[in-house]
Amino acid sequence: MLIRLGYDLEFDLPAPLAFVAQLRVHPSRAADLREADVLHVDGGVATHEYSDSYGNICTRFLAPPGRLRLWNSTLIEDSGLPDPVAWDAREIPPHELPDDVLRFLLNSRYCEVDLLSPVASELFGGIAPGWNRVQAICNWVNNAVRFDYNFARPTKTALDVFTERVGVCRDFQHLAVTFCRCLNIPARYVAGYLGDIGVPLRLPMDFSAWFEVYLDHKWWAFDARNNEPRIGRVLMATGRDAADVAFLTSFGSSTLVKFFVVSEVEQPISV
Amino acid sequence: MLIRLGYDLEFDLPAPLAFVAQLRVHPSRAADLREADVLHVDGGVATHEYSDSYGNICTRFLAPPGRLRLWNSTLIEDSGLPDPVAWDAREIPPHELPDDVLRFLLNSRYCEVDLLSPVASELFGGIAPGWNRVQAICNWVNNAVRFDYNFARPTKTALDVFTERVGVCRDFQHLAVTFCRCLNIPARYVAGYLGDIGVPLRLPMDFSAWFEVYLDHKWWAFDARNNEPRIGRVLMATGRDAADVAFLTSFGSSTLVKFFVVSEVEQPISV
Amino acid sequence: MLIRLGYDLEFDLPAPLAFVAQLRVHPSRAADLREADVLHVDGGVATHEYSDSYGNICTRFLAPPGRLRLWNSTLIEDSGLPDPVAWDAREIPPHELPDDVLRFLLNSRYCEVDLLSPVASELFGGIAPGWNRVQAICNWVNNAVRFDYNFARPTKTALDVFTERVGVCRDFQHLAVTFCRCLNIPARYVAGYLGDIGVPLRLPMDFSAWFEVYLDHKWWAFDARNNEPRIGRVLMATGRDAADVAFLTSFGSSTLVKFFVVSEVEQPISV
Amino acid sequence: MLIRLGYDLEFDLPAPLAFVAQLRVHPSRAADLREADVLHVDGGVATHEYSDSYGNICTRFLAPPGRLRLWNSTLIEDSGLPDPVAWDAREIPPHELPDDVLRFLLNSRYCEVDLLSPVASELFGGIAPGWNRVQAICNWVNNAVRFDYNFARPTKTALDVFTERVGVCRDFQHLAVTFCRCLNIPARYVAGYLGDIGVPLRLPMDFSAWFEVYLDHKWWAFDARNNEPRIGRVLMATGRDAADVAFLTSFGSSTLVKFFVVSEVEQPISV
Repeated sequence: MLIRLGYDLEFDLPAPLAFVAQLRVHPSRAADLREADVLHVDGGVATHEYSDSYGNICTRFLAPPGRLRLWNSTLIEDSGLPDPVAWDAREIPPHELPDDVLRFLLNSRYCEVDLLSPVASELFGGIAPGWNRVQAICNWVNNAVRFDYNFARPTKTALDVFTERVGVCRDFQHLAVTFCRCLNIPARYVAGYLGDIGVPLRLPMDFSAWFEVYLDHKWWAFDARNNEPRIGRVLMATGRDAADVAFLTSFGSSTLVKFFVVSEVEQPISV
Repeated sequence: MLIRLGYDLEFDLPAPLAFVAQLRVHPSRAADLREADVLHVDGGVATHEYSDSYGNICTRFLAPPGRLRLWNSTLIEDSGLPDPVAWDAREIPPHELPDDVLRFLLNSRYCEVDLLSPVASELFGGIAPGWNRVQAICNWVNNAVRFDYNFARPTKTALDVFTERVGVCRDFQHLAVTFCRCLNIPARYVAGYLGDIGVPLRLPMDFSAWFEVYLDHKWWAFDARNNEPRIGRVLMATGRDAADVAFLTSFGSSTLVKFFVVSEVEQPISV
Repeated sequence: MLIRLGYDLEFDLPAPLAFVAQLRVHPSRAADLREADVLHVDGGVATHEYSDSYGNICTRFLAPPGRLRLWNSTLIEDSGLPDPVAWDAREIPPHELPDDVLRFLLNSRYCEVDLLSPVASELFGGIAPGWNRVQAICNWVNNAVRFDYNFARPTKTALDVFTERVGVCRDFQHLAVTFCRCLNIPARYVAGYLGDIGVPLRLPMDFSAWFEVYLDHKWWAFDARNNEPRIGRVLMATGRDAADVAFLTSFGSSTLVKFFVVSEVEQPISV
Repeated sequence: MLIRLGYDLEFDLPAPLAFVAQLRVHPSRAADLREADVLHVDGGVATHEYSDSYGNICTRFLAPPGRLRLWNSTLIEDSGLPDPVAWDAREIPPHELPDDVLRFLLNSRYCEVDLLSPVASELFGGIAPGWNRVQAICNWVNNAVRFDYNFARPTKTALDVFTERVGVCRDFQHLAVTFCRCLNIPARYVAGYLGDIGVPLRLPMDFSAWFEVYLDHKWWAFDARNNEPRIGRVLMATGRDAADVAFLTSFGSSTLVKFFVVSEVEQPISV
């Protein structure tokens, strides 16, 4: 299956502004790209790319005042299969985890492992370790939290989600990620493309967030918001939480004036 | 000047327990070591060392139930000079910062940049950028926050310190680190040895926390708790905040039964 | 000036539900009423009225499942003058305050006096006591906080407003009330009618919140949201904060299906 | 049984300071007093007493700079029986509660009913209403929270206790009070004398906190900290939480230099 990916974002900048974008497809999917994946910055702005400590491609640039347009259109090959499910995947005890996985057990800005550990033990401590326990966490979060765009805010943490029980995509994942870490299950936050392939249309498109869990020495996709295997996830960036993973970080103020994202099956054109 | 560094820590473990220690002298000081710097784990426990994403040496091991003793004694050569002061050191604007410094501008568990940015602007936005502004932050924190061991808690964040105005070493640094980041000044949390060299005796010894700020393309030591240049800081680990930097992280429960740290001038023995 | 006051509210109740309403005009304005002020509950629901510890009229009833309609239309005579301003009104020191005013100095759910006292001292401690200091608080809050309906939430406290700098009517008042109390100036939260009399139209109508401050042994209206003297405030209920003052408290769930409030100058009909 | 009650408190005041004390035995126990219950303020300081909106006796005074001594010694007759237990006491639905009991269902500074309601439903929603459910709340809190004087802080709320799981007397009660209110069970915070009558000695004496729950149209004592029927509770003040009930509120700073409380069985002197 070929998936068309892209975005078209416009901002008004009152003054020159430094940006770091995480808008590239993640290197782990580079081999699947069928067209170039480029962050286009209109107006001849010079960009610089680097890999952050999580292996995400970051694009830096200093934008001049005025209108800023960022866009891309690329094509990726995808298995077309839903997220894999492995009920027999086992948890790896902390002392057997790879060195670079350990940091996904720690506290982070939006995932207060220290504050939610007793709760996680009470809710999930009695469930047998493994895939089933992670799924139980997703089920719990999906059931307890109500999706509502009107209750998004950038400062909302996992504890806020736990007490307020309402939020958006990232909020569901932050709470689930935190519960996993509380139980010593490595979990990381993911941002990427996720279209409506194979599910009823949900508009408008946006970038999406899900999370990954380390079981059986592999990272697996989970999604406490949608909570069902989905087709066509394309990872862009991963990190401890949304503080590490932002499609755009700027060091000053700007106004969003256009936001368009696409992630859909590319229809072959018959001649 | 030669400084004797060491520690002797004992714990009781009810069950086998995985640990990650950040008890080694930081690689940036390796050339100054005059004796081997080794984390001794009694009882023939196998250890494994790795470097985390910040370049800190981490030591992992799985300890058996019962008494666990961790100790070390090493010797380091030090300039014997107080922390450098460079009033003319300038702030580097975000777009000129090295790639790997950018993450020290972001939110982290104990440093809520998002929540304290307006406050930082109001307090320090009018001060000319540069060393003087960082020093103004240290002065403010040192003056506003009262040191009291009785108000330490592991979950205390920079915002908590800002509202409660009381805390320990790490709390002072978390608030100062956060204010710096709010102003787009990269700042990182540091743990290390800091004895009472050249200052009135303060007992008992403990590991210490300070922070570093990136000015003029170098990292400089600041200390919002002591707020004066000190002699003999020996860096062990650095990271975004205390969630990244813990002399000991364990994945389960244990009881501390002995805690001894030394960091003092080595007296030459005349024959 | 005659002001027409009224509301028409409808809810769907899945089950019988107990309510306490604070929808009556406050007794302090009873003498100004020119028509009866009655909370009509359709469907023959029995109501009971009582006065709470703040002197507000509360109406209790147990509503059956199904559609619940609450409505009223009344007429009140008003001076037609803007809120009084008394630049020479002085603060009363705590030991001279009346007994029943003291509670308006204390902590409450949405007004964390304990957490914001250092901030209040830093911001306003240097300003001469009296009306001018309260006005300085309103100016600060009005300037620092951005009004945005999309960032309302029922759990938002004064500290949240101070850090997030965005909110609705009640949020502005909670922060200003808290700052006043931090400085030992009694302040209470007010809910009432406030139409657009004499100001550019702002739609749709809603109940409004402002606050009162005790100066010169009287309560005076302040409004950190609008921050200008307004015509036609009609007090309904007052208390320590929005936890004490809610136009409707219910002990279970319901769905709001209609919300209409009116508060406008009654046009005389010429014959 | 006769119980000797008293206290001897000393403070250093840098400047004149206004106080409100809640150090009198509550009017509900006035008939049991066998000696006068008087708040003695040394140095000829004039005091004024009033009853707050909860019916507590409050004593106000303006103390001059220097040493302030507050003391009392009185004698009360007590049943000598442990706290009553009534397993068949039933919850009263909100619409049947007396008017003046309703406020004990609401949010307050240290009892965030709004934030903990989902948790309370999950933990206790499935338990049959009545005394047994309140006892289940006490059992849960008593079991989940660890008593530790080193983790007291004046700003700690029920949510903090729920996440940190450590605290002192008042913290246990705040969490239990909040859980009760979340379930629409009226609960109020109590401060009073509670000696070690009939239990192993626990020193030093202090004032104590417990809480009361409204069941079967009566208020009953519960104590999530001690969690067993105790002999000799003497109520001093009650309110929504510790923000309403403080043995001493002052409007400025002072230093505590002596703190002595007594509450013990008066031994008859045989002649």
